[in-house]
Amino acid sequence: MSENHILDSAKAVLEAQSFSRLVGAQLKVFRSGEVVLEIPINDNLLQQHQFVHGGVLSYAADNALTFVGGSVLGPEVLTSEYKINYMRPAVGEKLIARASVIYCGKRQAVCRCDVFVQDGEEEKLCATSQGTIISVSD
Amino acid sequence: MSENHILDSAKAVLEAQSFSRLVGAQLKVFRSGEVVLEIPINDNLLQQHQFVHGGVLSYAADNALTFVGGSVLGPEVLTSEYKINYMRPAVGEKLIARASVIYCGKRQAVCRCDVFVQDGEEEKLCATSQGTIISVSD
Amino acid sequence: MSENHILDSAKAVLEAQSFSRLVGAQLKVFRSGEVVLEIPINDNLLQQHQFVHGGVLSYAADNALTFVGGSVLGPEVLTSEYKINYMRPAVGEKLIARASVIYCGKRQAVCRCDVFVQDGEEEKLCATSQGTIISVSD
Amino acid sequence: MSENHILDSAKAVLEAQSFSRLVGAQLKVFRSGEVVLEIPINDNLLQQHQFVHGGVLSYAADNALTFVGGSVLGPEVLTSEYKINYMRPAVGEKLIARASVIYCGKRQAVCRCDVFVQDGEEEKLCATSQGTIISVSD
Repeated sequence: MSENHILDSAKAVLEAQSFSRLVGAQLKVFRSGEVVLEIPINDNLLQQHQFVHGGVLSYAADNALTFVGGSVLGPEVLTSEYKINYMRPAVGEKLIARASVIYCGKRQAVCRCDVFVQDGEEEKLCATSQGTIISVSD
Repeated sequence: MSENHILDSAKAVLEAQSFSRLVGAQLKVFRSGEVVLEIPINDNLLQQHQFVHGGVLSYAADNALTFVGGSVLGPEVLTSEYKINYMRPAVGEKLIARASVIYCGKRQAVCRCDVFVQDGEEEKLCATSQGTIISVSD
Repeated sequence: MSENHILDSAKAVLEAQSFSRLVGAQLKVFRSGEVVLEIPINDNLLQQHQFVHGGVLSYAADNALTFVGGSVLGPEVLTSEYKINYMRPAVGEKLIARASVIYCGKRQAVCRCDVFVQDGEEEKLCATSQGTIISVSD
Repeated sequence: MSENHILDSAKAVLEAQSFSRLVGAQLKVFRSGEVVLEIPINDNLLQQHQFVHGGVLSYAADNALTFVGGSVLGPEVLTSEYKINYMRPAVGEKLIARASVIYCGKRQAVCRCDVFVQDGEEEKLCATSQGTIISVSD
């Protein structure tokens, strides 16, 4: 498949996730070992102090980790586990989750995802995560 | 404050989180060291295989951890970090996140949250998480 | 195998780990879903403030997690990942790592381990951990 | 202080940790935001398959994380928590733990540590970790 076809296939998976549509996630980059997922920030995604809710940052990290794992292990994958550290409140126009693969074995990949917030010209790191994606194909 | 007032105050915080309203989270128990958060499952919360999206499980764990940390540290808290293991696909009527406090120091609490899915009469453990909640009051 | 034989087999594995002998770890309980590992505290296990070194607590948690995973998945297992929260400085006579199984699938188990320090009559929780043990048998 | 004095001070802390002497850890780099800790592999550090014991990898990650946190937060720090993924069995001449700082706030730093094994000319990534280091000075 061409790189465009691969991106389109991955976008179709994201579109098939009703929760991802609810959150408004968009897949910007999907290639072997690298994924970028973006979420335009709107009023539905906030917590009581008007920062983006931690759950949205977690969703972004979790989903970008799963997709980047799938970019090397194939489409039948799921996130086995991950950990996330929150570092700064997220305030701005959009979240950008950048995920990469640290290690890929036969059945599992160890991946990392940094979640940034874009606020005007600036991008700030808000959260960082590390997790295990496993293949569930036979 | 009476136990009812405390639960009502905590519910008001949850209500002030627009993302929690979007997800449909409900606070069922909030007392010192113990929190139960429930999420009725609907079509907006799913992924491509019609299981509840991992991001919803993460949201539930993250938010229940924050609230249970707040139940011992006071209302000005945030989740510093957590890790989550997904164990079973979540299929059923509602998610139930049960959080407890393992250790509470002056400024931080180590907490745990198990996320169950209720499917008919049965409750199944879908995810388990452990994290650090920190006080941000001065 | 009788319960005693099972414990003896597990002890033989621990004995075959030269690092476990260096640390002085002892297996006290090994049965399906439950493991207790103890480490008498001596001067070689400390850090600069004379507390037990975090690395010893990590070793105890990691190894107890692996053994308890092996108690349900069979002897050919390894720890895929874990996270640990340190809560109190460990000062006393011995460390006691108590591990249990939260979930066991075909190829992996999610396990938990609490590490206590015994100081006179008292036992205090010093660290808590959660991790994934995977079967590597074919 | 000159860079050499800073490295010497940090080495003195490591030397004051009896467990680090037992393991044979050596501090090779210590500067703001970057730490390299090495451990020559010997027979005392192995598990039953003659790989380096996971507990040694954890010790290396944990200690390198603490030191790198201290490189930006000052000497009075401790590791609050971390998670580690093991990726490959460690076989070779020495372990090299390379730690860096992802984010540094007033009281805590989020840090990362990759643990490599050097085997002849080759360096292989064996484990990767992410954690929180907190300042305990007043």
